[in-house]
Amino acid sequence: MLSTQPYKGVRDFFPDDIKVRNYIFDTWRKVCLSFGYEEYDGPFLEPFELFSAKTGDEIVNNQLYSFEDKSGRKVAIRPEMTPTVSRMAAEKIRMQTPLPLKWFSIADFYRYEKPQKGRGREFYQLNVDIFGEESVNAELEILLLNKGIMEKFGATDKMYEVRFNNRFLMNYLYERIASLTVPEIKAVQKAVDKKAKISNSEFESLLEKDIDKSKIKKVHEVLNLTISDIKKLKDLPDKASNLLKLMEMAQKVGIKNIIYDPALVRGLDYYDGNVFEQYDLTKGNNRSMFGGGRYDGLISLFIDKKVPAVGFAPGDITLMEFLKSWNLLPETGSLVNLLVTVFPGNKACLEKSLEVSEKLREYINVETYLNPDMELTKQLKYADRKSIPFVLIIGPDELAKELLLIKNLKTEEQSKMKSLQDVVKLIKS
Amino acid sequence: MLSTQPYKGVRDFFPDDIKVRNYIFDTWRKVCLSFGYEEYDGPFLEPFELFSAKTGDEIVNNQLYSFEDKSGRKVAIRPEMTPTVSRMAAEKIRMQTPLPLKWFSIADFYRYEKPQKGRGREFYQLNVDIFGEESVNAELEILLLNKGIMEKFGATDKMYEVRFNNRFLMNYLYERIASLTVPEIKAVQKAVDKKAKISNSEFESLLEKDIDKSKIKKVHEVLNLTISDIKKLKDLPDKASNLLKLMEMAQKVGIKNIIYDPALVRGLDYYDGNVFEQYDLTKGNNRSMFGGGRYDGLISLFIDKKVPAVGFAPGDITLMEFLKSWNLLPETGSLVNLLVTVFPGNKACLEKSLEVSEKLREYINVETYLNPDMELTKQLKYADRKSIPFVLIIGPDELAKELLLIKNLKTEEQSKMKSLQDVVKLIKS
Repeated sequence: MLSTQPYKGVRDFFPDDIKVRNYIFDTWRKVCLSFGYEEYDGPFLEPFELFSAKTGDEIVNNQLYSFEDKSGRKVAIRPEMTPTVSRMAAEKIRMQTPLPLKWFSIADFYRYEKPQKGRGREFYQLNVDIFGEESVNAELEILLLNKGIMEKFGATDKMYEVRFNNRFLMNYLYERIASLTVPEIKAVQKAVDKKAKISNSEFESLLEKDIDKSKIKKVHEVLNLTISDIKKLKDLPDKASNLLKLMEMAQKVGIKNIIYDPALVRGLDYYDGNVFEQYDLTKGNNRSMFGGGRYDGLISLFIDKKVPAVGFAPGDITLMEFLKSWNLLPETGSLVNLLVTVFPGNKACLEKSLEVSEKLREYINVETYLNPDMELTKQLKYADRKSIPFVLIIGPDELAKELLLIKNLKTEEQSKMKSLQDVVKLIKS
Repeated sequence: MLSTQPYKGVRDFFPDDIKVRNYIFDTWRKVCLSFGYEEYDGPFLEPFELFSAKTGDEIVNNQLYSFEDKSGRKVAIRPEMTPTVSRMAAEKIRMQTPLPLKWFSIADFYRYEKPQKGRGREFYQLNVDIFGEESVNAELEILLLNKGIMEKFGATDKMYEVRFNNRFLMNYLYERIASLTVPEIKAVQKAVDKKAKISNSEFESLLEKDIDKSKIKKVHEVLNLTISDIKKLKDLPDKASNLLKLMEMAQKVGIKNIIYDPALVRGLDYYDGNVFEQYDLTKGNNRSMFGGGRYDGLISLFIDKKVPAVGFAPGDITLMEFLKSWNLLPETGSLVNLLVTVFPGNKACLEKSLEVSEKLREYINVETYLNPDMELTKQLKYADRKSIPFVLIIGPDELAKELLLIKNLKTEEQSKMKSLQDVVKLIKS
């Protein structure tokens, strides 16, 4: 016998699971469309080089599903969307499509990881990107869109927060205030990226390994700067002051749950401007949900052009945990409105049941019972176990009198009706 | 530089492509829900054994994408859904879920094939299955559902036909009329499966290779039986006469484009009762679109129980060709209703544009122009190139007078409005 279990770390979506999944996908899609974003999708398999070029080493070396196809081409299952969407956007930009492109997709990804809570080998992500907008309004719109999504899910801004930083600003501050060299900045950023997961003394020894002792005090000074300290700095370069511009605009348009976090790094791979990360504020379980930011350099992997880009990518698994912990998942009932029963052993009744079902389907979702010999009580029990709210019975008596017997399974009320329109009206009321 | 092209034989879905894809998926989903079917989805990767157990040799040996994961597990990318849905249904049946299960999914599949017209390495399929219904009403409902889908796409029954056969009936006829042995029946079926693609003399020599000459005349007799010949046969076993029952019921419920085809085989792998295949009747290009049938044995790979099953699986590529050749693909315009422009170099106007966009999004899809320095004429040109029907302009004059200037880009009409509700009304009218 074969096992009924799926491959390790991936999910089967049974009908109850798909209702939740569709609720999440529909909400994502609706909000993205309301912001005028266009949907796209890329293929599940991509040439291996697409990921080795720019996706982080950790993913490519340890987590990528890759293999050779029957012609010896090295291919990989997508672990993220950014390389694909950059490839596709580059193709459109080459074809002179007017900029900006505002695109979104909802797609599944695979990574070979140790399955654990909130992390499987397979997950879905909404990917939202703007290509071709240099101003900080691009980041601002991504934040507004994120807020729109969270509101549609019923979340208030007390339930999550958005932490912000700017990669260019940090490099500038480390250089100007702590006089760090480029390799020293990289080392500091790597240590800071680990900071939340290690002790203070471990953090100190990480710094001491690579940074001149005289400079470490200054590194702490940089990490302790508040947003108002930064505002007071003179001659901040444009790309660094984008952080201040964004914070100011965000507050003006009513985004309150946004805080400056000098310890936010978000890997080192393609981000080169403002970056952000969203945290679930569930008490005692303050989790990172997802992040995003500006990656102006990526398109130039494909075409000889610099095209600014900003994006973010919430995932379905962390979102589902967020919705569960704040009790925001809606009840999902049956999508079937009515079971049309079939009167056992009566061919004329069966034909009538089929005909009536067919006509009702224009207005409501109708399941027809198909076994022509099953007792009626068992058919009713089936509807009840599947939480179908109404059943319709056409027996020889109803057939002769041209009546439809309809029963509400919750209230047990039943009534005989002449017209299909009355049935639809009752069920929709 | 990296190529902007996708992996060979797979598709990028740009925004214009996704509109068509969503139209097809939405139509499939709507009709399945109206029949009371429940949606599910399985994982993209499955254990290799799931396919080697029952999927046809041609697919497993030549077309399956399979490889070892980092722990040495042999996995495969799904080439079809039937093994997965049987695995998942078996799990539910083991958990005492009431039968029948009526399930559908819309999913993508990979097969390593030579890319050609109507066939890529990646395709989407709607999969519709009923588990647990023995009567021929299961096949009948699948046919009704198929008809419902075709009608929703605007197809009449002159545009396609459904060819029918019954695997059990053919075995019975070959045995009874032509006195064939079991291996001879297999050989005949293999030859018949190729019949449409080879010449008559090639077909004859195929038969002569494996069948006793004295029996070949009788084989032709079987292949020439019409449906009324079969009706006259006495003592037809129940499972064989299911073909007649289905044809009779189908005609009663108004399915007219259904014909008996004794040469229909549909592979040899899991079908064991009624089988059917749908043909596009486009003149001069009479193509097979997809098929389906009864496969009562498959669930017993997973649990010690026989559960009857019927299913069919239309694919997106053959469907798209059908819709194109009958001119049934709808026009797809922009999903964005309105571009809210931003008055160049004026921060107060930008903030107002953002605020207005935000409020309108509850009712319509609104793109906000983000570049704060772009000339208005270029913003209008951008809307026009993207076929966005309306633009809204808030300049210093409108800001002072609390007005909204709205312009219809097709008619060039413009009007100044006080309230957002009026804007929504104009756009929705």
